[in-house]
Amino acid sequence: MLRLYTYFRSSAAYRVRIALNLKGLAYEAVPVHLLRDGGQQNQPDYRALSPLGTVPALQTGSGTFTQSLAIIEYLDETHPLPPLLPAPAEDRARVRALAQTIACDIHPVNNLRVLQYLGRELGATQEQKDAWYRHWVCAGLLAVEQLLAGDPRTGTFCHGEMPGLADCCLVPQVFNARRFDCPLDALPTLRRIVAACEQLAAFQNAAPAMQPDAE
Amino acid sequence: MLRLYTYFRSSAAYRVRIALNLKGLAYEAVPVHLLRDGGQQNQPDYRALSPLGTVPALQTGSGTFTQSLAIIEYLDETHPLPPLLPAPAEDRARVRALAQTIACDIHPVNNLRVLQYLGRELGATQEQKDAWYRHWVCAGLLAVEQLLAGDPRTGTFCHGEMPGLADCCLVPQVFNARRFDCPLDALPTLRRIVAACEQLAAFQNAAPAMQPDAE
Repeated sequence: MLRLYTYFRSSAAYRVRIALNLKGLAYEAVPVHLLRDGGQQNQPDYRALSPLGTVPALQTGSGTFTQSLAIIEYLDETHPLPPLLPAPAEDRARVRALAQTIACDIHPVNNLRVLQYLGRELGATQEQKDAWYRHWVCAGLLAVEQLLAGDPRTGTFCHGEMPGLADCCLVPQVFNARRFDCPLDALPTLRRIVAACEQLAAFQNAAPAMQPDAE
Repeated sequence: MLRLYTYFRSSAAYRVRIALNLKGLAYEAVPVHLLRDGGQQNQPDYRALSPLGTVPALQTGSGTFTQSLAIIEYLDETHPLPPLLPAPAEDRARVRALAQTIACDIHPVNNLRVLQYLGRELGATQEQKDAWYRHWVCAGLLAVEQLLAGDPRTGTFCHGEMPGLADCCLVPQVFNARRFDCPLDALPTLRRIVAACEQLAAFQNAAPAMQPDAE
């Protein structure tokens, strides 16, 4: 039985929920509330699973895994169908670069722990934190748009006609962008792909509002 | 011919330089100076290769690739020996999680563009920027130490007796940690592994001081 340590609003957990759904894998959701009890991710029991206290973590019969992209690649290797990465090495590199532009260059800078530090240690106002958030989202998603719009391999989804690893990252990031009122007008390819993903039950059922811990 | 767009001090480029050396692949280094000319990574020619303006980018006969981890996986898939990832899916997930803890949870938060924003937009002093840097490095490397120290699969290197993807990420991050005077006393496993890596020519020749654009 797969057990996913998750928080409804965590963008990284959202990615893995989509991947699990695309693979048709049932899992037990164990909520880790990032704001309650001083952050449940900081409790010793959870830190034993995820030393940095990040969600998600996926518990399986073969061990517990952290880092959303590593988890999704693990799921793809152990449950190959439907594939979340294409077969040719060049195309795999393209999809991974799209995913990592979001997962390395946008999301970590806007993570809850970073926003908390900005306020606590640097005295940033809510307005300054919102501007920070929008700055990194806008710069990063514009790069993603350029990677998508300029490449004939972009299809209904980020790569061809099947949703995959890059789409698992894109949809949660755009969800966050909307939550923080980031303008998406200059990103037509990206919006078109997100709209296609949102037609699919795998994406719909992974959305924050559909989670057992949603508020 | 492989062409690597690199900056001597870029931690992400340093990772790819190590991987290229471990694979024994010759490449032409094309320096992109991140501070000169308003940041050479912002010039249109470079942005056409790397829309977000990040280094490294690797130009090959099969296209240009961005994102250091995607590039290293591409090199590993197209030049399998010596392998930079182990074979079992569980072990691959472990190595990727170690790499991503560094490449997603430590490095992007401390990237040059982020430090510049802290000063420019939030008025952070040099002292505050240094404290910021050390905070994320210490938290992240402590998690890496725990992942390494508590796992029998840790060997001379991060995973067993051959250097791989996680080592490619660890050594540049520890180089940066030293540059910013981050204390490493609580990280004995990590220091032992870095010392082992530093014995190898592949790591030595990838170091910032050995690059043609070193200052």
